[in-house]
Amino acid sequence: MKKFEEKTIQSKHIFSGRIVDLFVEQVELQNGEQSTREIVRHPGAVAIIAITDDDKLVVVEQYRKPLERSLLEIPAGKLEPGEDPAESAIRELEEETGYTTERLTYLTSFYTSPGFADELLYVYLADQLKVAENGRQTDDDEFVEVFEYSLDQLEAFEASQRIHDVKTVYALQYLKLNQKQKG
Amino acid sequence: MKKFEEKTIQSKHIFSGRIVDLFVEQVELQNGEQSTREIVRHPGAVAIIAITDDDKLVVVEQYRKPLERSLLEIPAGKLEPGEDPAESAIRELEEETGYTTERLTYLTSFYTSPGFADELLYVYLADQLKVAENGRQTDDDEFVEVFEYSLDQLEAFEASQRIHDVKTVYALQYLKLNQKQKG
Repeated sequence: MKKFEEKTIQSKHIFSGRIVDLFVEQVELQNGEQSTREIVRHPGAVAIIAITDDDKLVVVEQYRKPLERSLLEIPAGKLEPGEDPAESAIRELEEETGYTTERLTYLTSFYTSPGFADELLYVYLADQLKVAENGRQTDDDEFVEVFEYSLDQLEAFEASQRIHDVKTVYALQYLKLNQKQKG
Repeated sequence: MKKFEEKTIQSKHIFSGRIVDLFVEQVELQNGEQSTREIVRHPGAVAIIAITDDDKLVVVEQYRKPLERSLLEIPAGKLEPGEDPAESAIRELEEETGYTTERLTYLTSFYTSPGFADELLYVYLADQLKVAENGRQTDDDEFVEVFEYSLDQLEAFEASQRIHDVKTVYALQYLKLNQKQKG
C-alpha cells in the first residue's frame, strides 16, 4: 500500500468542462475513517521562459477572469489531448508571442495545487529566438499583448504585483539564479 | 475599462464544496464575442519555509488524492474564513510540524493557477524554531509525516520527483538564492 494511501470508496463526476473536470470522491483513510476529497482534473500545461538575444524575458499580458484583472505572465497554455509537452511549448510560444526556436530545453515540471488539482506544469527554456513564419495566432477567445523586459524591470513588476502568478515568479527566480551563476 | 476586461454576462454556481466552489461564467470579450470561463474559487492558502537551527528545511509527507501518490512538501494549508495569513502560517506550522516561532517573515504571494482558479498562496519564512507547546495537531482527516533535510538532500528528492509541487520547488530556489547571497 502506498504511504497514507486514501482508497476511493465512491467517485462522483460533478462537472465536465472545456478546461477542467470536477470530481468529489469519498475516501477511506489509513485509520479506517472516511472523508471526502474535491478533485479538479486538468489536462496539464506548459510554460516557456523565452529569452531574447539581448537577455530580455518575453512576457504576455492577458485578462484572468478568476482574478478579474490582467497579469503579466510568461507564455503558457494547456496541453491538447495526446500532445507532447515540448511540441505544445513551441506551439504556445509561436501562437502567443510570434517567436519560435530550434533550441528548447526542458527545465522542470511541478504540480501547481496538489491539494485539490492534478494540473502538472512543464517548464521549458527557449533562446536563440526567431520570428515564427506564421506570426502570432491566438485562440479566438484569447487576447494577449507581448512585451520584452529586463530582469530589473521584471522585479519592479513583481513588487507592484503586475507579475503575481507562480510560474512567472519561478521564471524570475530562475533568471536570478542563472545570472548569479554567470557573475 | 480594465485592459482586455471580460464582462460577466451570466454566472452559474455549479458546486459548493468544503475546499472549492466551481462557477461557469458566460463572458463578453473585447471584440464583442462571447465565451465561457470555468472558475474554481478557493479561500487562499499559506506555505511556510521553515529553517531549523542547523540549516535544514522542514518538510511534510502527505498523500495527495488528486495525484494518487504522496509528496514531500513544505508545510501549507488553506486560510480559514477571516483568518490573517500570518496567523494561519503559525497555526499550520504548529499543527503540521510541532514547531512554532516568534520570527515569521512574509516573503511573497502568488496565484497558483490563474487560468482557472483564484487560489492565492502566501509564503512565509520561519526560523529560530521552537517546539510548540501543544505539539502537532493535524486535522482528523490529515496524515502527515515530518522530516528535516539539507538542501543537497532536497535537490536529490526534486530530481527523483518525491518533491514535485510548485511551492516546494519555489522554496528550494529560495534556499539556493539565499545560499548564493551568503557565499
